[in-house]
Amino acid sequence: MPEKRKLGRGVAIVGAGMSKFGMFADKDSKDLFAEAFKELLSSVDKGFDPERIEAMWIGNFSNDFFVHQSHWGPIISDLLGMAPIASTRTEGACAASTLAFRDGVMSIASGLYDVVLVGGVEEMSKCTTVEVTEGLALATSPYEGAAAFTFPGVFGALATAYFDKYGASREALMNVTIKSHNNAPLNPKAQFNQTIAEIMQAKIKRAEEKGRPVPSWSDEKDALRDSRFNPPVAWPMCLYDCCPISDGASCMLLVAEDMAGEFTDKPVYLAGMGQGSGRGLHAAPSLTSFEANKQAAAEAYGMSGLEPKDIQFSEVHDCFSIAELIHTEDLGFFGPGEAFEAVADGATKLDGPMPINTSGGLKCKGHPVGATGVSQLIEVWKQLRGDAGKRQIPGRDLHVGGAQNLGGTGGTCTFTILERR
Amino acid sequence: MPEKRKLGRGVAIVGAGMSKFGMFADKDSKDLFAEAFKELLSSVDKGFDPERIEAMWIGNFSNDFFVHQSHWGPIISDLLGMAPIASTRTEGACAASTLAFRDGVMSIASGLYDVVLVGGVEEMSKCTTVEVTEGLALATSPYEGAAAFTFPGVFGALATAYFDKYGASREALMNVTIKSHNNAPLNPKAQFNQTIAEIMQAKIKRAEEKGRPVPSWSDEKDALRDSRFNPPVAWPMCLYDCCPISDGASCMLLVAEDMAGEFTDKPVYLAGMGQGSGRGLHAAPSLTSFEANKQAAAEAYGMSGLEPKDIQFSEVHDCFSIAELIHTEDLGFFGPGEAFEAVADGATKLDGPMPINTSGGLKCKGHPVGATGVSQLIEVWKQLRGDAGKRQIPGRDLHVGGAQNLGGTGGTCTFTILERR
Repeated sequence: MPEKRKLGRGVAIVGAGMSKFGMFADKDSKDLFAEAFKELLSSVDKGFDPERIEAMWIGNFSNDFFVHQSHWGPIISDLLGMAPIASTRTEGACAASTLAFRDGVMSIASGLYDVVLVGGVEEMSKCTTVEVTEGLALATSPYEGAAAFTFPGVFGALATAYFDKYGASREALMNVTIKSHNNAPLNPKAQFNQTIAEIMQAKIKRAEEKGRPVPSWSDEKDALRDSRFNPPVAWPMCLYDCCPISDGASCMLLVAEDMAGEFTDKPVYLAGMGQGSGRGLHAAPSLTSFEANKQAAAEAYGMSGLEPKDIQFSEVHDCFSIAELIHTEDLGFFGPGEAFEAVADGATKLDGPMPINTSGGLKCKGHPVGATGVSQLIEVWKQLRGDAGKRQIPGRDLHVGGAQNLGGTGGTCTFTILERR
Repeated sequence: MPEKRKLGRGVAIVGAGMSKFGMFADKDSKDLFAEAFKELLSSVDKGFDPERIEAMWIGNFSNDFFVHQSHWGPIISDLLGMAPIASTRTEGACAASTLAFRDGVMSIASGLYDVVLVGGVEEMSKCTTVEVTEGLALATSPYEGAAAFTFPGVFGALATAYFDKYGASREALMNVTIKSHNNAPLNPKAQFNQTIAEIMQAKIKRAEEKGRPVPSWSDEKDALRDSRFNPPVAWPMCLYDCCPISDGASCMLLVAEDMAGEFTDKPVYLAGMGQGSGRGLHAAPSLTSFEANKQAAAEAYGMSGLEPKDIQFSEVHDCFSIAELIHTEDLGFFGPGEAFEAVADGATKLDGPMPINTSGGLKCKGHPVGATGVSQLIEVWKQLRGDAGKRQIPGRDLHVGGAQNLGGTGGTCTFTILERR
């Protein structure tokens, strides 16, 4: 009964910050969270005393595995000088920090708190690539893990199913990647900041300088078809279909709706939120849709009273390029099997009718898994406030944006709708 | 401002279940949670359709480490046939499932849901003792871990500080252990089910049968002083001061207060709850008290309008015997430095004025860390309903009980007060 899910008290977002995302040998999780929190402090338009924060929820997937440290709630409250206030870690694989956001929202809606901090952090680059792949596989369903399915393999299988069902090809994935890379240079926090065309030019220039054979790519897709430029990872997933290994942190300041004016004249409000859980691929009703997405979307639309056509732009969880296509169909932005043609037509570009992943997405912004969910919400918050800088969606009066976050192979999906009134 | 923390909507507990706690080579986390949930189903007095459950929160410390599987939210929702409803994992070291309970409470109080499942699970015994010690140490503060402090060492240091400050000795710890072991045989779910006297008799009988030298212990304390019976682990913590390695699961059914009558005529209500975070021993203001306990207690008493004298009995987190003394002082049941004499006087026995850990406590019931918090609340729920069987507190009309849960070295503390009206 999604339509009955209403909060007893509204919630506003009045501040946010994130670290730069990337691979940082000289920064640990505490450094990264401090960087994010410092930006949050300066983001609150009317200023605020951090002592007003009453509790916090911190998303983290598995720093247990990556850096052999768990129990991040109190570590972060200590870091920020906020002990002894309550601090809870949430985990839902790569959706960990959206779950922190949701619990923070509920805590305010319940009347327990008025001002809470939510965020997330992950520190992955101290591990080797093989170790990271092993660590991330802790989030697959137990059946997938037992079958030696790691994430590139799982999403490769989904892409194969999508291609077979809808007549798409790798061209569909390339269009997603090229679009995301076009947004990335506009986001100073992004891990990668070159377009595919710029990467091509750089490789050509380097070959010329080194006196090696110079590639003769005719265009971006020609380069992406070249296995020297874009080697296979798990067919049909190639290197440029896969998000990178990242370190990073993100956080947001949530307050009761009726208090928002104390912090800013440009608050952004929660309009709707939903969360679903999935059963793993062995039992999934479809390989081209996530049932947890459908649950999350139904709840978020039900709570907000909005429909897919009301969402003006969205971040979605493009851990792999195929995932972006699936999510935008599950959320109803495009019909089943129609997303790949919409992307080809430019619908999801920054100046298209339905901009997707203006941040550059996980592919380019980076994916420090515990920090990703809140970082998606930050992008929506910035766009709605008109604070997105060079990547501000042009020529549109933005009122409603979405953020979809995925954990595992659809084990956890969330959809959150923010609005400016 | 603890006194202002009030929920917008009351919450009742109308069902609960737990697996047997122990070391089970032939059961995994899913088997254990299924066992707990099956008991919950039969515990709802008027019966109920599990389809009414709208969301769940699952506490788990680090099955990431222990069995190389994370993302337990959707695994449990799938197990119970409840996908695609939302399922979130919480983590706060050994307080993980009380955090699940708290988030579940807030979700109902917020108006988002009416019926939620909360619980926890941990599967530790597939690891060696050394591996478990390493895994648990992920929950120490990063400073303690870096100093090679594992939990027995940390609590040994706290005991030394307590002895020094208050003039106590190992006798104080023995009294806690003997009391807990006296309760354990009365709890069919407990990992250990013998009193210290019974263990002594069994060892004497075995020595006689094997023709070995027969110990001549004069009483229980004489045995506990014997390092062959009770070898040192981290002085002054000896074997019988330390809780065991355990597997287990626990769960509870929470509903909006005004709906409780649909499920039972004997509901138990949440009266107050609090949570605090601590800074690790290097920065702790005291080694004989946890500041996070003080925060949690102030919030729980503030919300409930109750005082320490109103709490008729309590479960507290006796991961080590010294912890039981510290907690009962932090919660105000006894004055600072007075708990050890109160225990010596029998105050905390099952038939004493302030029964503590009627379940046998972590020491005897076992401590599958992610399941412990909710299992403590289950003990309070059973006692308040008069359903505690042989360990029902005798001759008292019980209305108010408490449960205190600890994570790490005071990194996370919670205190929860339940009541029967």
